[in-house]
Amino acid sequence: MARLATLDKPDEPRSAAEDRAAQVLMTAADLIFRNGFDATSMNDIAQAVNLTKAGLYYYTKGKDDLLYKIMAFAMDCVERDIVAPCREIQEPEERLRQIILHHLNVIFVTGGAITILTEEVNKLANAQKQIIVARKREYLDLVRDTLGQLKESGRLRDLDITIAALNMFATILGVARWHKPKGRLTKDQIAAETTEFILAGLLLDQ
Amino acid sequence: MARLATLDKPDEPRSAAEDRAAQVLMTAADLIFRNGFDATSMNDIAQAVNLTKAGLYYYTKGKDDLLYKIMAFAMDCVERDIVAPCREIQEPEERLRQIILHHLNVIFVTGGAITILTEEVNKLANAQKQIIVARKREYLDLVRDTLGQLKESGRLRDLDITIAALNMFATILGVARWHKPKGRLTKDQIAAETTEFILAGLLLDQ
Repeated sequence: MARLATLDKPDEPRSAAEDRAAQVLMTAADLIFRNGFDATSMNDIAQAVNLTKAGLYYYTKGKDDLLYKIMAFAMDCVERDIVAPCREIQEPEERLRQIILHHLNVIFVTGGAITILTEEVNKLANAQKQIIVARKREYLDLVRDTLGQLKESGRLRDLDITIAALNMFATILGVARWHKPKGRLTKDQIAAETTEFILAGLLLDQ
Repeated sequence: MARLATLDKPDEPRSAAEDRAAQVLMTAADLIFRNGFDATSMNDIAQAVNLTKAGLYYYTKGKDDLLYKIMAFAMDCVERDIVAPCREIQEPEERLRQIILHHLNVIFVTGGAITILTEEVNKLANAQKQIIVARKREYLDLVRDTLGQLKESGRLRDLDITIAALNMFATILGVARWHKPKGRLTKDQIAAETTEFILAGLLLDQ
């Protein structure tokens, strides 16, 4: 139960989405995403995660803190499960492909809400906002550097790198919004076809 | 001022986004998008559109009705400014290109909030939700039929048509989220590059 504190240590070897604290954050994120931050009470969240209100406050100081913890957890997943493994890939086209695939996998493992809520940095207090924005920038830099390498080697279509990155992320975040875990389409099919869509949209001769 | 009623008549020749009533809806949508539906009061909206609260109630029965009117207005724009002109285009690849370009143009003219709020159909009462969903389906059918024609003629990549349509809309809606009217990128550049990204992602030999 007290493991929520460990979410701040992205160098731990276990998968970030596996423990009980992560389940609390993912369920809270889902509730906030469906009903809105203001319309969701700490009581609602405690009920949904099967805790007393006091039990929930053992994890978090309050709703604002919870929103920050959700975003920090999302960034743990991004850093541990996308940035760290993909940074090791030398060939930029393969790196881009693996970034997309790993990001989609994070969405499938954590549920879309966690991912979508990371867009709401403006709801955070300024100091916390700056931390999340800086962590997001690290990921964005990896993507921009990769697109830049592909542009230099003549593999990128005639696209502005910012527009390319924004369209890529919009497509990935789109999956977080439209994917239905119990729908007709399998995760593998969605991951394969969405990755092909993005790569073909960005690169020549796909 | 009483022209809000005419928003239900998509066969009127003027542009749907041009009159005062449309401005009220676009401003209200922007406020609701930025602050959340629950956190936005009718007072806030009245202030933002420079009306007394009584003046605002002349337009709309209340906040729920306003949300419906925003979505109905969005669908007026879709039907008048995307579906009607693009349905006339015989060649499916050109039809697809013009659907994307016209949709991006609607986003630039009305502002992104109007477009993004059409995702919130679950906030509507059931009867209103059904009307909006049916109107959206008409547009979706045009896109699916177009993708189906392209698949039949061997122009579409090896993609499920549903995934193709969802990725296409995610990219377009993404522009509604990330476009900053006063940013470095011009609308023309965003429209051209985003259209190329989507067409290349969907079609062979682009």
